Amino acid sequence: MAAGKQLSGAGLRGQVAGKTALSTVGKSGSGLTYRGYDVKDLAENCIFEEVAYLLLYGELPTQAQLDDYKATLKQLRDLPQPLKDVLERIPQDAHPMDVLRTGCSMLGNLEPEDSFEQQLDKTNRMLSAFPAIINYWYRFSHEGVKIDCVTDSETIGGHFLHLLKGEKPSELHEHVMNVSLILYAEHEFNASTFTARVCASTLSDIFSCITGAIGSLRGPLHGGANEAAMELIESFDSPDAAEQGLLRMLDNKDKIMGFGHAIYSESDPRNVIIKQWAEKLAADVGDEVLYPVSVRCEEVMWREKKLFCNADFFHASTYNFMGIPTKLFTPIFVCSRLTGWAAHVFEQRADNRIIRPSAEYTGEEPRSVPAISERG
Amino acid sequence: MAAGKQLSGAGLRGQVAGKTALSTVGKSGSGLTYRGYDVKDLAENCIFEEVAYLLLYGELPTQAQLDDYKATLKQLRDLPQPLKDVLERIPQDAHPMDVLRTGCSMLGNLEPEDSFEQQLDKTNRMLSAFPAIINYWYRFSHEGVKIDCVTDSETIGGHFLHLLKGEKPSELHEHVMNVSLILYAEHEFNASTFTARVCASTLSDIFSCITGAIGSLRGPLHGGANEAAMELIESFDSPDAAEQGLLRMLDNKDKIMGFGHAIYSESDPRNVIIKQWAEKLAADVGDEVLYPVSVRCEEVMWREKKLFCNADFFHASTYNFMGIPTKLFTPIFVCSRLTGWAAHVFEQRADNRIIRPSAEYTGEEPRSVPAISERG
Repeated sequence: MAAGKQLSGAGLRGQVAGKTALSTVGKSGSGLTYRGYDVKDLAENCIFEEVAYLLLYGELPTQAQLDDYKATLKQLRDLPQPLKDVLERIPQDAHPMDVLRTGCSMLGNLEPEDSFEQQLDKTNRMLSAFPAIINYWYRFSHEGVKIDCVTDSETIGGHFLHLLKGEKPSELHEHVMNVSLILYAEHEFNASTFTARVCASTLSDIFSCITGAIGSLRGPLHGGANEAAMELIESFDSPDAAEQGLLRMLDNKDKIMGFGHAIYSESDPRNVIIKQWAEKLAADVGDEVLYPVSVRCEEVMWREKKLFCNADFFHASTYNFMGIPTKLFTPIFVCSRLTGWAAHVFEQRADNRIIRPSAEYTGEEPRSVPAISERG
Repeated sequence: MAAGKQLSGAGLRGQVAGKTALSTVGKSGSGLTYRGYDVKDLAENCIFEEVAYLLLYGELPTQAQLDDYKATLKQLRDLPQPLKDVLERIPQDAHPMDVLRTGCSMLGNLEPEDSFEQQLDKTNRMLSAFPAIINYWYRFSHEGVKIDCVTDSETIGGHFLHLLKGEKPSELHEHVMNVSLILYAEHEFNASTFTARVCASTLSDIFSCITGAIGSLRGPLHGGANEAAMELIESFDSPDAAEQGLLRMLDNKDKIMGFGHAIYSESDPRNVIIKQWAEKLAADVGDEVLYPVSVRCEEVMWREKKLFCNADFFHASTYNFMGIPTKLFTPIFVCSRLTGWAAHVFEQRADNRIIRPSAEYTGEEPRSVPAISERG
C-alpha cells in the first residue's frame, strides 16, 4: 500500500462542519448553553418540556404555550398495535438501544413523515412515544405484562417512571427526572447529533435521522458511559475499597468511564448539578455506600489524574436511587437528546448542503483484474 | 442573532474526513476503482460475490475461495420467524427503504453482533438476508403471499429476482443484476457511507451502522435518483416528446434527476457500462420507447447543459426491462452498497477516533431564564 500521510484532524476534531444556533459547549472553558441560556439556570427553573419547547420552537414557552404543549404531548403517548407486536417479538436479552432503534424505525413505517411540514408533529410524537416503546418492551420481556402505555403523569420524566414502576412517582423523583432530561437534551455536534445531521443532509425523513442517531449514541465511546459508571461504583462496597480499586485500575491503565471529556477541559458543568441531586436521593433512600463511593471516586480521579466527573458519573447513582435498571440508563438519554437531535435536523434542513467529505486514499495503485485461475 | 461568517466548505466538501484503501472516485477525472481495480474491469470479468469478497476480505477470491464464499452466503438466506412477523405488520404503502431500515434493525435484535470478531459473519448474514427482507415484505403486502425465502439461485442478484418473481431468472437477467450490483457496491465517503463511519466511530455495532446508512441513502439527494429517472422517462411516449419535455423543464429550471455528479466532472464511469446492458435488454424485450427516450434525454442534457448521465439514469430502464417495480430500485442499491458500507466500518474500527467535529455558533448571546410569567 502507498504510505498515507498523517491526518492532522482525525475524527474531524476542531474542524467546523456547519453552523448551529442551538448550543455552545465549553465556549468559556466550562459552560453549556442552550439558545443562550445556561444549562444550570434551565435545570433550576424549568421542567424538561420547557427546554424541549425552547430547542424545538426557538424560545421558552409562556405559561399558556407550556400548558398547551404539555396537553399535546400527553395525547400522543399510546403506541399503535403493530408497534406493540414488534416489541413483543424482541427478546429479553436484546440491547435496549437496539429495541429503541427498531421501535423508532417501525414507528416511521406506521406514521411516516410525508413532508417536512410535519417535522414538529413527528418529533412531538416520538417524544411522547419513546418512554412507552422502551418500557412496553422492558416490562413485557422481563415481567410478561402488557402495560397500558398511557398515564396521567404531567411530565415525560414522570411518565417514564410511571410506566416503568406501574405507579405514579414521587414528586422528588419526577423533579430529578426533569433535571436529568434537561442536562442531556443538547450538546452541539457530538457523534450522534452529527449522524442525524448527515442523514438530514440527504433530505431523508426524520425517523431515519433519529434512528441513525440512536445507533450512534449506542456506541460505548458515546452514550452508555453512565451504565459503565454504574458497574464501576457497584463493584465497590466502601469508599476505601473504591480508592484501592481505582488506584489499581489506574496502575493497570484500565479505562475508567465517567471522567473527562472531549471538549470540556476543566469541568463538566452538568456534574455539579446532578451530583447535588444524587446526594439528596442518597439521603432519601438512606444510602450509605453508593454515594460515598461515588464521591471518593471523584476525589481520587482528580487527585491522581486531574480528571473531573462528566455528566454521566453521578447520573449512575442518581438513576439507581430511583430504582431504574442500569440497562435503561442510555434509553433515558435518548428520550432527552431526541430534542437536540430533532432541532439539529430542522437546522440542517433550513440551510442544507449534502454532507459529503473527501477521503485520503491509502490503497492499492491501479491494477488489472487477473483471471480467477491466476489468483492467490 | 450574531452574524455568522460564511463557511468555505459547507457540507465538508473537499475536506478530508479520514483515510480509505477501498476506492478512488474521479481521481483521474472520471475513474472509479475498488482496491485498485477499475470498476469497468470488474463489471466485465466478475460476479458480484467476487467484488463483495474483494471489498470485505481485501483481495479477489481464488476459485476455491469463491466457491466457498457462495456456499456460505447461500446458507444464510432464510429469515427468522419474528423478523417475518415484523415485515407482515408493515403496511403496503410504506417506503421500501423504511422497511429495509426496520428489517435490518430487527435482525440486529435477533442476531446481535456481540463482538467485532463477528463483523464479517454479520455482514455476510445481511448480504444474504436483505433480498428476502425486501421481497418478503413486498410480496406479502402487495400480493398477500408468504414466500419461501430460500432459493437455489447461485448469486445474490439471481436470488433477488427469483424471490421477486417466484421463478428462476434468465441467465441474461442474472448477469445484468451482477453488473448492476458491482457498479453500486462502493463509492468512497458519500453521505450514507459517511453515516456508517460516524456511527462506527462510537464503536457501536454493525447493525446500527448499516441501519443508519440505509436511512441516509433513503434521502432524495442521495439514493433514489434511479426511481426519479424512471418517473421522468416513463412520462414520455417518444424521443421527440422527451426532447420537448426536457427543454420545457430546463426552461422552468425544474430539477432533473440522473444527471451530473458531486465528484465526477466529465462523465460517470458507470454510465457507459449500464447503458450497454440497457440496450441489450431493450432488444431482448422488444422495447421501442424507454430506451430510445433515455438516449434522447442523454443527448439533450449534454447538448443543452453539458450534463452527463450518472450511474442512476440508465439503471432506470435496465431495472424496468427486468420487471422490477420502481419502488424497489433503491433497496437493490442497498443490497449492493452494503458491501462498501461494511468495509468502511471495518476500516473505521481498525484505526478509530470518534468523529466529533465542531460547529460555528450563530445563536443568542448569554441570557438569563425569565420567570414564566414574564415571557412572551
